[in-house]
Amino acid sequence: MSLLVVGSLALDDIETPFGRATAAPGGSAVYVSLAASYFDTPVRIVGVIGEDFPREGLAELEERQVDLEGLQVVQGGRTFRWHGRYHYDLNVRDTIKTELNVFESFDPVIPPTYRKTPYVCLGNIDPVLQLKVLDQIEKPRLVLGDTMNFWIERKRDELLETLKRMDVLVVNESEARLLTKEPNLIKAAKIMMGFGPSIVIVKKGEHGALLVTESTIFSAPAYPLENIHDPTGAGDSFAGGFIGWLARTDDLSDENLKRAVIYGSTMASFCVEEFGIAGLQDLSYLKVQDRFREFRELSRFDEVEIA
Amino acid sequence: MSLLVVGSLALDDIETPFGRATAAPGGSAVYVSLAASYFDTPVRIVGVIGEDFPREGLAELEERQVDLEGLQVVQGGRTFRWHGRYHYDLNVRDTIKTELNVFESFDPVIPPTYRKTPYVCLGNIDPVLQLKVLDQIEKPRLVLGDTMNFWIERKRDELLETLKRMDVLVVNESEARLLTKEPNLIKAAKIMMGFGPSIVIVKKGEHGALLVTESTIFSAPAYPLENIHDPTGAGDSFAGGFIGWLARTDDLSDENLKRAVIYGSTMASFCVEEFGIAGLQDLSYLKVQDRFREFRELSRFDEVEIA
Repeated sequence: MSLLVVGSLALDDIETPFGRATAAPGGSAVYVSLAASYFDTPVRIVGVIGEDFPREGLAELEERQVDLEGLQVVQGGRTFRWHGRYHYDLNVRDTIKTELNVFESFDPVIPPTYRKTPYVCLGNIDPVLQLKVLDQIEKPRLVLGDTMNFWIERKRDELLETLKRMDVLVVNESEARLLTKEPNLIKAAKIMMGFGPSIVIVKKGEHGALLVTESTIFSAPAYPLENIHDPTGAGDSFAGGFIGWLARTDDLSDENLKRAVIYGSTMASFCVEEFGIAGLQDLSYLKVQDRFREFRELSRFDEVEIA
Repeated sequence: MSLLVVGSLALDDIETPFGRATAAPGGSAVYVSLAASYFDTPVRIVGVIGEDFPREGLAELEERQVDLEGLQVVQGGRTFRWHGRYHYDLNVRDTIKTELNVFESFDPVIPPTYRKTPYVCLGNIDPVLQLKVLDQIEKPRLVLGDTMNFWIERKRDELLETLKRMDVLVVNESEARLLTKEPNLIKAAKIMMGFGPSIVIVKKGEHGALLVTESTIFSAPAYPLENIHDPTGAGDSFAGGFIGWLARTDDLSDENLKRAVIYGSTMASFCVEEFGIAGLQDLSYLKVQDRFREFRELSRFDEVEIA
């Protein structure tokens, strides 16, 4: 089934203890689309760029068969820019600068051909824009939404409105605690389910992810990477792998949601191995399957009877 | 096979957002012994108390068949006391006061009947005392050691000496990073293996635990407790469940070490559900097995082939 991805397209300046990148193509819509593209499901993008977005960035998406009909290009405009610096342990980052540029007046318009897309991924953008997108989609089968501290703090009411229309909310630990004011993550997940979504995923970075539905709790491990080069895009890659698998299989059972979490974790693990989007290039479904199986080995144990 | 537990016996003042306890029997040797006692393996304790240690505290150990021959009682002495206060989110605690009392001059003497104990658990005490214990044991089959920031900072050289004699090192995340100066936990585990232990376990509290050996990496989930009343003793309960299972089965294969990690996590999950040692009372092997199986459900997923 097809998947619609709405989010940012950006030019990122990234500094980690292991290197730096300047004006590297990124943004939530790019990471989500690339990650989802490995699941052999049609991916459509809605977003905005300026004239400065490099041709190679778009070529990469086209090569992965991502449909760019919904991409707005603002003549004479500058693309959204983000400059981030990661600390020594990579778990903390500072945003040095954000330039909204063409994103400031972004008004998402869903092309008529996209309006019946069954799977919708709302990247981390203004909840008002997320809602505007949903208003243009006819009866989606599954809406996944991401958000961040900035919107939780500044547009809480608007976010709560948008949450009513989401089926899956994907947040990280600190966002979960900020949104619910509850330190216990299981309790926080249940509070978030009260806001609308029937499925909540809490991403825990190097500690994996937690899936909570009405009928199950699932704890997914993180892939034990010794060399993480750049955490940028890990959360979006997770979302892309998760919803890519669901769009591919169109099965929303607990068992399949668990697999989707592992596919999400798989794509995130590839993402952080390289700078920017490089980790999501040159993969294959076979490579993805191999890593999925490594995740299984990592967390599998059995029981023995003792005399 | 029998298990020797060396560590502190304490009277704890505990404050959490959910209540408080005063002069409650605790200490690493008590938590480890109680947790290990559910694995039907003889448990022996070496430690020291003053005359003020309540009779009920000892009765609890005796009821669980813990052998107290190695327990020194200092006439007129006061038991080691610890006063801790947990923050709102329970992940952080402040030590309000520590009184070493009889622990200050503790000289562990291993009774002759204990000297051939094959499984040895060294609770979090001065590494010099840990080494003194090992010097009195004849060819142990497995030595597990715990430590803490205090010893890593103040007695690093002595700790490194003791680590050479340990088979299993159990530390938490911050201890692993402090000991190795390496933020990546997988790399940190490998550095710690270079210090001596062939098995390293990093406890991650609400995020589970990581087992690293020469031939495997295993990620264990945490039990998704909504109601944690008191985290005191969780790490010691983990160690007790882990080594209790190993002493019971005497199987040091990777597969069995993984099970041991889950039994450790199981005992820790029971511990934190109640104040002090109450969570380790009135359990049974059946209850332990049930929770072990819940851990399996929590982390199990399968693979499906898609057309």
